[in-house]
Amino acid sequence: MRIAILTGGGDAPGLNTAVYEFTKLAEKKHEVYLALHGWRGMLEGELVRAKSIDLLGSAFAGGTFIKTSRTNPFKDEERAKRLADTIKSRGIDVIIAIGGDDTLGAAAEAQSRGLANVVGIPKTIDNDLPETDYTLGFDTAVNIATTETEYVKTSSVSHERISVVEVMGREAGWIALFTGLATGADAILIPEKPIETATVVEKLKRAYGEKKYALAVVSEGVKQDVGGPVDEYGHARLGGVGNELAAIIEKELGVETRATVLGHTIRGSPPSAFDRVLATRFAASAFDAMEAGEFGVMVALKGNDIAAVRLSDIAHRNKLVSGKWLELLDRHWSL
Amino acid sequence: MRIAILTGGGDAPGLNTAVYEFTKLAEKKHEVYLALHGWRGMLEGELVRAKSIDLLGSAFAGGTFIKTSRTNPFKDEERAKRLADTIKSRGIDVIIAIGGDDTLGAAAEAQSRGLANVVGIPKTIDNDLPETDYTLGFDTAVNIATTETEYVKTSSVSHERISVVEVMGREAGWIALFTGLATGADAILIPEKPIETATVVEKLKRAYGEKKYALAVVSEGVKQDVGGPVDEYGHARLGGVGNELAAIIEKELGVETRATVLGHTIRGSPPSAFDRVLATRFAASAFDAMEAGEFGVMVALKGNDIAAVRLSDIAHRNKLVSGKWLELLDRHWSL
Amino acid sequence: MRIAILTGGGDAPGLNTAVYEFTKLAEKKHEVYLALHGWRGMLEGELVRAKSIDLLGSAFAGGTFIKTSRTNPFKDEERAKRLADTIKSRGIDVIIAIGGDDTLGAAAEAQSRGLANVVGIPKTIDNDLPETDYTLGFDTAVNIATTETEYVKTSSVSHERISVVEVMGREAGWIALFTGLATGADAILIPEKPIETATVVEKLKRAYGEKKYALAVVSEGVKQDVGGPVDEYGHARLGGVGNELAAIIEKELGVETRATVLGHTIRGSPPSAFDRVLATRFAASAFDAMEAGEFGVMVALKGNDIAAVRLSDIAHRNKLVSGKWLELLDRHWSL
Amino acid sequence: MRIAILTGGGDAPGLNTAVYEFTKLAEKKHEVYLALHGWRGMLEGELVRAKSIDLLGSAFAGGTFIKTSRTNPFKDEERAKRLADTIKSRGIDVIIAIGGDDTLGAAAEAQSRGLANVVGIPKTIDNDLPETDYTLGFDTAVNIATTETEYVKTSSVSHERISVVEVMGREAGWIALFTGLATGADAILIPEKPIETATVVEKLKRAYGEKKYALAVVSEGVKQDVGGPVDEYGHARLGGVGNELAAIIEKELGVETRATVLGHTIRGSPPSAFDRVLATRFAASAFDAMEAGEFGVMVALKGNDIAAVRLSDIAHRNKLVSGKWLELLDRHWSL
Repeated sequence: MRIAILTGGGDAPGLNTAVYEFTKLAEKKHEVYLALHGWRGMLEGELVRAKSIDLLGSAFAGGTFIKTSRTNPFKDEERAKRLADTIKSRGIDVIIAIGGDDTLGAAAEAQSRGLANVVGIPKTIDNDLPETDYTLGFDTAVNIATTETEYVKTSSVSHERISVVEVMGREAGWIALFTGLATGADAILIPEKPIETATVVEKLKRAYGEKKYALAVVSEGVKQDVGGPVDEYGHARLGGVGNELAAIIEKELGVETRATVLGHTIRGSPPSAFDRVLATRFAASAFDAMEAGEFGVMVALKGNDIAAVRLSDIAHRNKLVSGKWLELLDRHWSL
Repeated sequence: MRIAILTGGGDAPGLNTAVYEFTKLAEKKHEVYLALHGWRGMLEGELVRAKSIDLLGSAFAGGTFIKTSRTNPFKDEERAKRLADTIKSRGIDVIIAIGGDDTLGAAAEAQSRGLANVVGIPKTIDNDLPETDYTLGFDTAVNIATTETEYVKTSSVSHERISVVEVMGREAGWIALFTGLATGADAILIPEKPIETATVVEKLKRAYGEKKYALAVVSEGVKQDVGGPVDEYGHARLGGVGNELAAIIEKELGVETRATVLGHTIRGSPPSAFDRVLATRFAASAFDAMEAGEFGVMVALKGNDIAAVRLSDIAHRNKLVSGKWLELLDRHWSL
Repeated sequence: MRIAILTGGGDAPGLNTAVYEFTKLAEKKHEVYLALHGWRGMLEGELVRAKSIDLLGSAFAGGTFIKTSRTNPFKDEERAKRLADTIKSRGIDVIIAIGGDDTLGAAAEAQSRGLANVVGIPKTIDNDLPETDYTLGFDTAVNIATTETEYVKTSSVSHERISVVEVMGREAGWIALFTGLATGADAILIPEKPIETATVVEKLKRAYGEKKYALAVVSEGVKQDVGGPVDEYGHARLGGVGNELAAIIEKELGVETRATVLGHTIRGSPPSAFDRVLATRFAASAFDAMEAGEFGVMVALKGNDIAAVRLSDIAHRNKLVSGKWLELLDRHWSL
Repeated sequence: MRIAILTGGGDAPGLNTAVYEFTKLAEKKHEVYLALHGWRGMLEGELVRAKSIDLLGSAFAGGTFIKTSRTNPFKDEERAKRLADTIKSRGIDVIIAIGGDDTLGAAAEAQSRGLANVVGIPKTIDNDLPETDYTLGFDTAVNIATTETEYVKTSSVSHERISVVEVMGREAGWIALFTGLATGADAILIPEKPIETATVVEKLKRAYGEKKYALAVVSEGVKQDVGGPVDEYGHARLGGVGNELAAIIEKELGVETRATVLGHTIRGSPPSAFDRVLATRFAASAFDAMEAGEFGVMVALKGNDIAAVRLSDIAHRNKLVSGKWLELLDRHWSL
């Protein structure tokens, strides 16, 4: 078979490991190609022959050696036609698509249109893909966010100030939840659990009273019920909610409060051991699914096991913080 | 209720987080004490009142702030009697025992003798406790071992040499397996899967031929079928098997081969985000078990959930690498 | 003698090491006190007896265990009087002031008014104190900024985008210069060397053309000759110049460009080995100066040696990037 | 001109940065080649054309992308003849030799025999090259050794045990000195300052009495005046002096004492910011020396400046810990 591997959407630690491990498994029996720049490469025929030996040097590095893009190959029918042509003319039988919602949505579409047989591997630092407990990159991103938040906390203690750390997460608050728990944050704000700003301020006031510093970790996607300041500072700009909250807290409590926005720094690290092992397991399961002729699926972490789930069950759904995780957060707020 | 928390056995990243989080949950309703030096403190009455605010500064540091020991309080009946007396005279109702096989074995014994009600929290960097997918400290230890092995690998590439990295693991090869997978090791040797030395040499020869360096990651507990060198170099000394293997490989292949023993460096790091969140969840579940009057149990990670298992099911059993993990290793060897 | 140690201004890695090491040297012969919260503690009499054993646990941690503030004890004569009274009533003979321009300026004032004998130790992550080659905290801050910039660069490569990283430095561009050199930045912008925005854009265009990503590292204090965008986005907000530049570059080159502001994360890390050794040497020299009755001085790194310089030579002067360092930057721009 | 760059001896962080930066400066005017595997490549004609763009990806990675060896090209006259022939036949005008004592010794020899014009760049994690304050790789190695020693210390505190950490350094104790100071070691043992074992034991006894743990950092090259154990355990084996000392301390004090040998882990890390900037400066100065026709020199760090020193002044001399550094150590022992 002729196989093409691609990585799409925002880059994440672990992508290179998955690409390398899959190639190593598949190259002995099949012709393996790398489609550069995600679906763009599949669309434009940017295909290069994969050899695991060439990928080895970057197998455990951050980012994605085969590049990525947010190109949607089904944006319109002209594109879809071009994609079909390229796949056909280049003789691609199987596509291994590694990505998040958009990338895997295109994979599901390619499968359902019969353009190619596809197997998906879940990746996003946001951990918001359904049907898998963890996605590639999440563990690493949380580790880096935790380290950086600890640095902010240290400075907060020295200066006896309040710190607001804003992390990525528009719809889902996984990064904020894990980072907040991992750093003993006094307030953790995620989109799934709206908390009145007055309650946040009250919690931080009490925490500050006890230990002369306080820490809030906040998802970028949180919408606070703040009146004036929203208009005054605006939501659209980078670090919006973090800076906004910091301004309110400082005003309400009269305590110096600083916001820090952890931006792209948390996605470019070499993968953690967890993400490396997960990538290795995902790659092996994707290979097994392919060999078994099981297509239209995404490999997924279910508890401690790897399983294959239907790609059609993934599309257009976000995995939000809920259930036991929300209970953990509720308990945290009740303290 | 009057509660005593203790940490026993080898220290591990995440202990301080668990102690802090449990104290924070329990101190509002109960009297919480810290038994210093593991079971020794329980035996000798080294008990100090726990306040979460005092534990905060070390909550996310490595090691264990409340110290540890390998003291077995049931070594003989005199000791057992003394333990019973101390528990009774100090009015301890509940013991939260955080540790590995020995520490939790003593907890099970204390429960079965009716000395106190106990809840256990699993901890060991070796990950060899049964009934839980992961133990506190394992993820961090693997991360550090991975980082250090990457450094060794880098030097191996520059010098075009073979490296043997020996990691902890006497009965169970979890650290070697995860570290080996996470670093793309060419050979992974664990006690659960004996591999003939000739096969190891052959694998490394092929790997070296392809890329001009090779890497073996080895559990300290591996017993190789090596003839002369065993007698010549001896098993008892530090880094036994690693140095032994390196000597054989160098001799057989005529390629410079160096051994590195990752010793205590991998257990003293601040906990990874994974271990911090796990410690927080374990502490919360231990608290819930206690509040529900559920004793004689250990909290455990089952897939992505926390459950309580019987302490009596843990004792004297090792969780060895098996099932899907052994298949992953087999596949690795087959490449 | 009765000695008080204080740390003032922004916290920096290495402060705890210096406080610990000085205390360890001095406590055998003298009474050592810690003035909490910088000059505020000296002013308000927040003095606690220093014991090195109590400081040991935080000796190599980030931040400052004895807290800091930006309190100026000579803000007005009432304060100055109060300071004099406190020093006298508490019997303080010597003040060891660890800080930057403001903190050491107050130390110089205290000396010249004869309130106490002072010895200064230079600290600021910005490295902009005169008469010393390096200040405590600079090396660590640059290491963290370098690590974080590498993460941004990795993501930049994967996405084939341009990244602008903004670091601290209002008057002096040391952090940007070192971070930029250490990460192979294509453009390094510091306040000391104004570069026309058109030149920056041209350089990045060429770099992007060669390698499909580009990196600019920028001091927050850089003033660009940008027209409209300045008015539109404003200079005052956090991450001003970084976001502004990114917007212009993206518009001019039609290449996705993202800004990342490395904020407080770079000042709260545990100190690098360099800063720990420097702190140890500074503490030893400060002790020697004190024992020799040499007051009104700051210890300083001169090449590879520690020397004592007059505090009066420090005050109100910034050490800007100049001489050989500016030549290095010029050469960098000429490539 | 036709230039060849080589890296020889043990690999060290910063080598790739120096090779990349030099190439980037020189490739516009000259033909730059990479001699692979140190002098071996020069001898055997393993020369590949250098392009900075190809080196960029590894410019800030650990190790040496162009490989290294310990080949001595002047081992005998046959080799020397072959080297001369290769240099001549390949038309090499200038050799940039990056290495330690042996590599630069060969460079001096090549210059004095008139085989080529050479410029040296000093590299060794041991920091024992004369005429330069720091060598490439030392700062990074000390940072990693410090991090790893902190991990050991953490575990030591938890277990209330004594730890002996052995680091590289056969003749010169720079790594042990810096690592010991940076971690607050109670005993620092280096070859340049023999300390009676009884004194070491006494110091550790006192330290242990005060804080219930103690730490010794020891150069591998230290020769202790230990009687029986030397014969019993032998000096030749890995971790000799560390394990030997640990055994004696445990026996003398009756306190659990563990040895950890930091081996190859400390040389394979990505370079610290300090080493990256130093490599950049060394490369620029080497280029300047070449352009000025100044040959037979090594660039060197003198205080905060880069200077060129005679290669003939370097050969066969070790830079030992002395002067102010030995005073610092003496003071440390006197506490």
